[in-house]
Amino acid sequence: MTEYSIGVDLGGTNLRAAAVDQDGNLLAQISASTSPEKGREYVINEIVESIQELRSKQLQGRFAGVGIGVPGFILIDEGVVLNSNNLSFLENIPLRDEIERRLGAPVILENDANAAALGENWIGAGADVQDLVLLTLGTGIGGGIIYKGHVMHGFLGMAGELGHITVVPNGNPCGCGNVGCLEKHASATAITCLAELMKVTPHPNPTSEDIYNLAVAGDLKAQQVFRSMGEALGIALAMLINTFNFPLYLLSGGPLPAWDFFAPAMIEEVSRRSFTYRNTKTRIEKAKLGSKAGLFGAAYLPFQAQKDRH
Amino acid sequence: MTEYSIGVDLGGTNLRAAAVDQDGNLLAQISASTSPEKGREYVINEIVESIQELRSKQLQGRFAGVGIGVPGFILIDEGVVLNSNNLSFLENIPLRDEIERRLGAPVILENDANAAALGENWIGAGADVQDLVLLTLGTGIGGGIIYKGHVMHGFLGMAGELGHITVVPNGNPCGCGNVGCLEKHASATAITCLAELMKVTPHPNPTSEDIYNLAVAGDLKAQQVFRSMGEALGIALAMLINTFNFPLYLLSGGPLPAWDFFAPAMIEEVSRRSFTYRNTKTRIEKAKLGSKAGLFGAAYLPFQAQKDRH
Repeated sequence: MTEYSIGVDLGGTNLRAAAVDQDGNLLAQISASTSPEKGREYVINEIVESIQELRSKQLQGRFAGVGIGVPGFILIDEGVVLNSNNLSFLENIPLRDEIERRLGAPVILENDANAAALGENWIGAGADVQDLVLLTLGTGIGGGIIYKGHVMHGFLGMAGELGHITVVPNGNPCGCGNVGCLEKHASATAITCLAELMKVTPHPNPTSEDIYNLAVAGDLKAQQVFRSMGEALGIALAMLINTFNFPLYLLSGGPLPAWDFFAPAMIEEVSRRSFTYRNTKTRIEKAKLGSKAGLFGAAYLPFQAQKDRH
Repeated sequence: MTEYSIGVDLGGTNLRAAAVDQDGNLLAQISASTSPEKGREYVINEIVESIQELRSKQLQGRFAGVGIGVPGFILIDEGVVLNSNNLSFLENIPLRDEIERRLGAPVILENDANAAALGENWIGAGADVQDLVLLTLGTGIGGGIIYKGHVMHGFLGMAGELGHITVVPNGNPCGCGNVGCLEKHASATAITCLAELMKVTPHPNPTSEDIYNLAVAGDLKAQQVFRSMGEALGIALAMLINTFNFPLYLLSGGPLPAWDFFAPAMIEEVSRRSFTYRNTKTRIEKAKLGSKAGLFGAAYLPFQAQKDRH
């Protein structure tokens, strides 16, 4: 029988919701503003109304439920957000149960990077494996770990904090209290900082895309920035490969178009630092679903929960 | 009904075998020499005869099978040792099937550090959790990762190579091709090397126990060696905690008595480098089963396989 679910990707500024069938076909999609400044009740209403709007579209098939990707740490069994920098007013309340009550339908909460990893595993670049790690390169670096087709959560939903792996023991300071975190050396933000340190461009506030365009144009300093970023990624990936021996490691996010500038240094570093990588067919690849990975991953959650029950 | 299994811990020089009941009680134990210089046939015979000798002891209960811990990478489903530094003549042959054939009983092969982690999870320091990481500090550093009560293997049995995590990007060179591997900064061997660099003692070839005794006697250089080792462990543990968010991380091996000398620097480093550690009740503790962890873990394998079938 045809079924569909609804996935929600809750960001700090935008909320996207999509109805998806069990083969991963997008049936309908809508967007709304998250407007965190309007507070808890407003945001919860936006979530519920977006889902109800999609359900009112006369979609074919049985409704399997809702998955919601949230930026933050989540106690999965309890359906509670423990910690969310952007949406702190959603912390420590029975968020899942409240949305379930208003909708009259089953809801699953998941961390947004975990949802993205699950989406890539379902219908993206990792559809051919059971185990993968996804690194999302953005303002920071998020991580999602999929093992036997399921998200690894850890005992408090804090697994996969891969942006805070130490890659340079005396490196750049991080708001987390550490120095040398991966995300301070390889995120989109790190790229622009490194470019400013290198005086790659006289213009203030370059974006990582600006740096990329300069690298394409042959600017050696811009290219050096991406090499430095690739080295940091390589140290982290070698560590992950030595730890997990998974077949696949995916990268996603804004800096991905600069792959040809950072990947050679990354692969060189991984090769040197991981005999597992050198001696096995371990793949390091681009993710495929782009910014929709989290939306699809969230939509997959109700289908996966059904399968796990059977 | 009472049951027993037989666990074998196959080392480079010694072979130990033990009959254990399903509550973890040791019923009988024997040792033999591995004598790798005598070759494959001799070693396989030693394994089989040790098991048969234990079975001949009129043990009570049904015999559940055999688990064998082997130093090396193992394809679990195939029962094949892919790579073993000390016992290379056991590589790439149907080792499990051959022992099964000679014994007429089911056999499971497992990596020795993985078996030790499983043993600690069964009846050791991690009996109260489902997820843990064990680091075994010896000549090198081995790792075992237990998730939901089961060993994480990776797709080629190479998961848990935690001794080769980079903790000092430009650190000490390692035979694996990397520099700054954890085991080059925190193993028992690393301790003696650091002590020689520090000229802790005028005597040649000090053991890690010698360095420990000097630290106890108040020698500041010896104490510094353990602080350095603790810092390296702390960097690796912070990474593991940020990655897994497991409740428990265990250390075992020769340097464990020096805990009070290395643990403060280790914990300081972990606290700084992992907000997950600082904000949760994550435990870093001594393993309990000592050199018998692998033996018990191997013995647990047949019991676990039975449970998984039901």
